[in-house]
Formats: sequence, C-alpha cells, structure tokens
Amino acid sequence: MGTKYEFLKERFSHWLGENGGGAVVAVSPENVLHTSGAYIASQRMIRDRLAMTIYPAEGEAAFLVGDVVHRTAKADSWIEDTRAYAEHHQTPMEGLAEILRENGLARSRIALETRYLPAESYLELVRELPDAVFFDAEEILDETRMIKSADEIDLMRRNAIAAEKAIEYGYLFSRPGDTERQVVARMRRALLELGGEWNPFITLAAGTANTLEGHHVAGDKPILPGEILRVDMVGFWRGYYTDFARMAVVEEPSKAQRELYHPVVHVQRHVMEAARPGVRACDLYQACADYSQQIGMSLDVNLIGHSLGIGLHEYPVLGPTYEKPLAANMTLCIEIASRVPDLGMFHVEDLILVTQDGYE
Amino acid sequence: MGTKYEFLKERFSHWLGENGGGAVVAVSPENVLHTSGAYIASQRMIRDRLAMTIYPAEGEAAFLVGDVVHRTAKADSWIEDTRAYAEHHQTPMEGLAEILRENGLARSRIALETRYLPAESYLELVRELPDAVFFDAEEILDETRMIKSADEIDLMRRNAIAAEKAIEYGYLFSRPGDTERQVVARMRRALLELGGEWNPFITLAAGTANTLEGHHVAGDKPILPGEILRVDMVGFWRGYYTDFARMAVVEEPSKAQRELYHPVVHVQRHVMEAARPGVRACDLYQACADYSQQIGMSLDVNLIGHSLGIGLHEYPVLGPTYEKPLAANMTLCIEIASRVPDLGMFHVEDLILVTQDGYE
Repeated sequence: MGTKYEFLKERFSHWLGENGGGAVVAVSPENVLHTSGAYIASQRMIRDRLAMTIYPAEGEAAFLVGDVVHRTAKADSWIEDTRAYAEHHQTPMEGLAEILRENGLARSRIALETRYLPAESYLELVRELPDAVFFDAEEILDETRMIKSADEIDLMRRNAIAAEKAIEYGYLFSRPGDTERQVVARMRRALLELGGEWNPFITLAAGTANTLEGHHVAGDKPILPGEILRVDMVGFWRGYYTDFARMAVVEEPSKAQRELYHPVVHVQRHVMEAARPGVRACDLYQACADYSQQIGMSLDVNLIGHSLGIGLHEYPVLGPTYEKPLAANMTLCIEIASRVPDLGMFHVEDLILVTQDGYE
Repeated sequence: MGTKYEFLKERFSHWLGENGGGAVVAVSPENVLHTSGAYIASQRMIRDRLAMTIYPAEGEAAFLVGDVVHRTAKADSWIEDTRAYAEHHQTPMEGLAEILRENGLARSRIALETRYLPAESYLELVRELPDAVFFDAEEILDETRMIKSADEIDLMRRNAIAAEKAIEYGYLFSRPGDTERQVVARMRRALLELGGEWNPFITLAAGTANTLEGHHVAGDKPILPGEILRVDMVGFWRGYYTDFARMAVVEEPSKAQRELYHPVVHVQRHVMEAARPGVRACDLYQACADYSQQIGMSLDVNLIGHSLGIGLHEYPVLGPTYEKPLAANMTLCIEIASRVPDLGMFHVEDLILVTQDGYE
C-alpha cells in the first residue's frame, strides 16, 4: 500500500470510471478529514465555513477551505493544491464551481455528498453549473473509509490503549460508597489527561437494575459491594473515535457473576479468532450466534460490532445482513452482551485490527 | 414574557403572517434545541438521525425524532405532540410530510432550514410534497435566538461563572517553568470538573511572540517570569457555549505591561456601560473605536463582540455594519484586544446580559 493519497486517487478514479463520473467531492467533516488528512476543528462548530476536497478522475486533487483555516489546511493536508475562498466575499460553492470548471468538468457527472451538503448550497451549485449532473458519493467514501492507512492504525492503536487505561484507572481508584457519577468523573478525567479531547458518550451503571437499562445515565447511586459495574465509553481524539465497554464487580465477584461474565468474554474471543480477510460480516455474526447457542449463552445484541475510525459507527457493521467480506487493515469493535434479569447486563467491547492472516 | 414556547409560537406566527408561510420547520441541532427545549446529544454524532420541530402558523407545534431518542425528547421538550419515526423503516422526511399534510399544509409555503437540511432530504421532501414551496427559515430563527428566556439566562449565568473560575484556577495553580500545555490541561480539567462537557477550543500563549499569533496552539514552551499569558477558552454545556479571554503575567507585571493592559479593560468597561436596549450594534462599535482613539489605544479587532448561547457566535454581532438595536435579554460577549509588537497581544472577553435599563 502506498500513501493514503495514492490509495484514494486510485480507488476514486476506478469508481468514477465504472460510474461515468468526473470527480468525487467530499464535504462532511468526516470525509474531508478522510480525504485531506487535515483535521479542521472549526468545521463542526461553524457549519457555514464549508471545506471540500475535489478528486477529479484524472490529475491531482484540490482542497478548498475558508481563508481563516487556510494555513491549517496547507500545513496538515497531503493535497498540494490547497485554496481558500474569501469568507463573506466568495461563497464556497463559487469556489467549488471554479475548480470543477478548471478541470473541464462543467458538463460532467459529479459525485458529491448529498447527505451532507445543505440544500441551499446544493441549489446554488446547480445554478452555477447548470449542465453538470450530481449524484451521491457516499458509496465510494464509505468503502474507502473501511481500509485504514498505516498512520491511522498507529494513531488508533495509541488512542485505544489510552482509552482502555482510562477505564481501568476509573475502576481502580473507586471504592464502595462512591457514586456512579464519581466513577464517571474519574474515567473522563483520565481520558482527557491521556490526550483524549472529548468524551461524547459514557454510560456507567451499578447493580442489576441500572445495568439492564441500555444507556443508563450515571447518577447519585452509590456503588455497593457485590454489585456489577458496566461502562461503555466513547472518546474523541482530533477526528478519531475510540469505543470500549468493560465490566467490574465492586469487591469480590460472586460465582453467578463469574459464570455469566466468562461466556461473554469467550464468545468475544471466539468472534475475534474467526475474523480474517475474506470472511463475510454476516458469517462472523452467524458464527457468534451459533457459538453462543452452543455454550448456552443468550446473546443480547442486534449487531456484534462495527468498524470505527473517523466515524463512531463505520462500515463494515457486523450484523446478519451485511454480506461484504472483511479485508486487511479494517478496524472492528467486537461487542458482546448478555442480559439476565436477576444479575444484570454483562457487556464487553474491544477494538481489533484485521491483519493479512487474522487479527491483532 | 411568558414561557419560551409561547414566545416562539407568537413570533413565528407573526412572521409567517408577514411572509405568507404555513409553518416554520427547524432541523439543525442548534435550532431544534432552541425550539424544543430538548438537547438531543446524538444528533451531532449521528447526522442521519434527523430531529425536527414543526411550528404551524396556527395551532400547536410538533416534535419529530428517531425512535431511539423518543423518550429523551418526550421528557425534555415543552412540545406535547412528540412523535417518532421508526429508523430504517420510515425516513425523517416521510414523517415530516405526514405532519405537514395533517396540518393542511401540503400546498403551502414552508419555511425550513435550507442551510442545514441535506440536499438528499430536501429533494425527497420536494417529491413527497410536490405542491408545497420551500423557503429559508433562518431569519426568524436567528431573530428569536437573540432574545434569551429566563431559564436560558440562569443556565448561562451559572456556566459563565464556572468557566471563568476554571481559567482562574488554571492561572493560580501554575508556576514558572510549567509548559503552556500544562496550564491548558489544568484549565480544561477544571472546566470539566465544574460541569462543562467539552472544551471545543482553547488557545493559551506565553510571551510576546506566541501571544501575537491569533490562535496559538499551546506547546512545550515553559512559561517564564515576566511573560504575559493570554488565554481564550470555549466551553460547552449541554448545548450552550461559554467564551472567555483572560490575561495574566507570570510573577510581577512590568510597568509597560500594566500600561497596556489597563486601557484594554477600560475600553471593555466603556463598551459595557454603553450597552442598553435601543443602542444599535454599529453605534456600540463606533463608541468603542472613538474611545480607543481618545485614550490612544490601538484597537485590534474587526468585531468587538458577538452574542452567545446555543451558538458560539450568534446575532447580534458587534461590528461596524450591523444596524439592529440591542434589546433586553440579549447576551453579549464583549471582546477587546490590542497588539504591540514588543509586548504581545492583550485580549479580554467577558459575557454581559442586556437588561431593561443597562447591563449586568
């Protein structure tokens, strides 16, 4: 695999050839990061300040941003042709139309993110380029998002280790009588001290009733000896997500708790062992369902996992109906849960990398 | 002023009357919070899961969300008619079209957020309601966002105090030799411990050169005795922003530093004193420019402030061209900066509330 830029150019070009398209235009914060390599933080807060990458079927890509973030874009992107539109003087769509015209694409079929681009901008672009035809770029953007580059894998590996440690730290420093909220505060603080920028989601539940709620909000309930603790925590690191779920027991686990926890982990291991290039996502799901039944565990999930990266849930999703095969350099969150009314919900989630001959 | 719901109904209805419209539809996370009172956190992460409020010109509003967040919407919104579309079975636009039809608006002019609604959804809605005409709702949404309700003011007051304390704490616990990054970590941690959920932006710079950069990223540079420290920090609290800028000097300030800092604060006070209902934003700007010149301070900003709330930058903006008058219950960030090549950039930013007869 060459650089990510070469990978994208080759895949986009091939897909455009098959679909009779002249260019792929990415507009969402996620796909601008994916296709430019630059994280433009303010794109999420100041939505009018559109940023875009333009990959023509032939030739080099261009990167168009508002002038306020031009320096960041230039410094961080692998795209050499980085341009700025002057905010409040030129609209982003005027800039985009200019680049498409320069590439001789004013009468072409252009793939763009119609699921992100605001209607107003879309209608303006149609007026700017009345002879162009626009269609949705989601398919090829999702597909290329599935395969992670070496740099992305390094980054995600480091983030995953830190996020896992943050949960461990939260459990380790908590004592009976602390509230759920205090345990959350410890984990959140550790996540941030370890470099995470944001904790978009965390559920932490103590005891049978609270863990049975899907997304319990941590409250003032104290954690009591013998209770299970279930946490599912999402972290965000300059455009990339982490997602882990972990169980603990306050003081000593009972025999019944051990006997429910171990199968959940065994099933998770079994799924990981089955993950390798060529295996279809739905087959992995089926293997999981079969093995759970074989060992007598009630599997309580619709999906047994999902990919992760720039998005929190990315393709492939590990459900019964997703038929595409796994490939090397995909990242997968493997997520197994089981509910028993008297004991609560047991849930583990870990991140793996699909390698040439298995997983890491 | 009655409840915020009554306020919105009355203003929307009046505006729709003037513009010949049948309903106002809000779609962006900001305006869904503004018009429903409910903070749907996942709307920002899972963008397909559209949420919408529909305010018809006559009658009660409806709130449409994905089924996963229906319970949250019901619990937190002032809108009684809260409905869910079944994700992956019904699209959000089918749900919206149904509500508009029920209200007899299938052939009406509908104001919606075309600057947010994705093109794909817009095109689907046009197919669903071929006889309706769509126009942009931004004007009335921006206008109603300017006036804060009593609840919003309470919330913003509490958040502002906490954010200010977080900066103070960061300065107080820092010592010469600490790095810029360590000071940032302290402020960020304090913000989170004080209830902030996220720190979307922070610039902290030590010394002349670094403070002169607009948005310096805190690095490994140690803070040294005699250096100025400049921080500008944004906090996020369940849908509402805070934004403060503060100066400090490591150990004792020099005479020159005091002589540059004091005018900046005086100018800021002068602007605050001039803020009251009826004063136009551009006049406030002019008063600031005049006073700065009078006391011989070089004013180094294009805007001297902006409103704040659900958005980080909201209307009114305090620039030379914004001619609308201030009104009671507007919140304003008053932001003054001055740059001197040998001394660095001095910058303060504070939040005020416009009251019936002045400011708080």
